[in-house]
Amino acid sequence: MLNQAPDLDRLFHALADPARRAMVERLSSGPAAVSELARPLPMSLPSAMQHLGVLEAAGLVRSEKIGRVRTVSIQPATLRLAEQWINARRQEWEARLDRLGDYLKSIENGEDHDDGVD
Amino acid sequence: MLNQAPDLDRLFHALADPARRAMVERLSSGPAAVSELARPLPMSLPSAMQHLGVLEAAGLVRSEKIGRVRTVSIQPATLRLAEQWINARRQEWEARLDRLGDYLKSIENGEDHDDGVD
Repeated sequence: MLNQAPDLDRLFHALADPARRAMVERLSSGPAAVSELARPLPMSLPSAMQHLGVLEAAGLVRSEKIGRVRTVSIQPATLRLAEQWINARRQEWEARLDRLGDYLKSIENGEDHDDGVD
Repeated sequence: MLNQAPDLDRLFHALADPARRAMVERLSSGPAAVSELARPLPMSLPSAMQHLGVLEAAGLVRSEKIGRVRTVSIQPATLRLAEQWINARRQEWEARLDRLGDYLKSIENGEDHDDGVD
């Protein structure tokens, strides 16, 4: 059975676009107004807002309207989910490489691999 | 200007699917035959091979045909690119929170914030 994990699906999909990653990069150093986020991007304001909507639906950012300005801030806990998934994979293959290394070293040292037989 | 970074685009896109993540999870503990990777997935072998193609195009896995068996292995360096991008964001916002914390503490201690004025 597949773990559907819709959060990770939406999260990785949200990060698979350079404009959306640029927004997350900008927001990592602090909140920003929507117009400020959109300005450096080579696209119209409505297009930038669509990208922002994808980030918001994935839980990566939150926006709040104060007066006439909508301010966007990053949601670190969501990005941490992606980090945790990748870290777990790395720990698995590093553990496997460690076991392989130990095994090769034991062969090099001429150790006996028959358990319990002296 | 946007950094197009096609590698990160393809990489995050490849991870945005539960079947492809399941394959990466399996491969983290060691190489596997294509048929072994496909077996637990609720889809046909051709569908599973399409997902495998997406992972291979993203550089996340490599496959090698030996005799009649195609064996797939993970490419840790590629997954590390995604990890590095996320880590860099986290370091930025943690540095920002540290500065904010230092500032609040200095206010609490009644320190003078006018530079050079005694």
